[in-house]
Amino acid sequence: MSDHSKRKITVDIYGQQYTIVGAESSSHIRIVASMVDDMMRDINSKNPRLDVSKVAVLTAVNVMHDYLKVKDELEQLKMLIRSEKD
Amino acid sequence: MSDHSKRKITVDIYGQQYTIVGAESSSHIRIVASMVDDMMRDINSKNPRLDVSKVAVLTAVNVMHDYLKVKDELEQLKMLIRSEKD
Repeated sequence: MSDHSKRKITVDIYGQQYTIVGAESSSHIRIVASMVDDMMRDINSKNPRLDVSKVAVLTAVNVMHDYLKVKDELEQLKMLIRSEKD
Repeated sequence: MSDHSKRKITVDIYGQQYTIVGAESSSHIRIVASMVDDMMRDINSKNPRLDVSKVAVLTAVNVMHDYLKVKDELEQLKMLIRSEKD
């Protein structure tokens, strides 16, 4: 992908500004940032003593868990489709 | 889910210890932690000036982006299957 097609968007997550560079639309980047912000605030409300970096790491752990679950479901579905075609 | 079925695992992510509570197997939790650790180290190697919390937030943003992409692919595949059945 050329740099020409990359966008630079500034978003606010948990009170800090981040510049995100990517080929995705601004609205997609804003949705991603807002979902991370929501999850961080949710984790913080359940564990108010955690500092920002721990809240962020636990957010990444939660999202990674969800990612692996959905990825697994997708792979199983693809395998099922392939086996039905045989 | 009852508390009885929950596991408590201590993992090391980016030099910090975290206690993760969940119904998943220890090996699954360790894989998730190790993937987050890898991604944090990768982001840090590309942006060595970022502090831990920013590295962790950007990791969460990256994983959330991957999660939404896979979730979208899964939903499209499910829609395709439903439309083929009609």
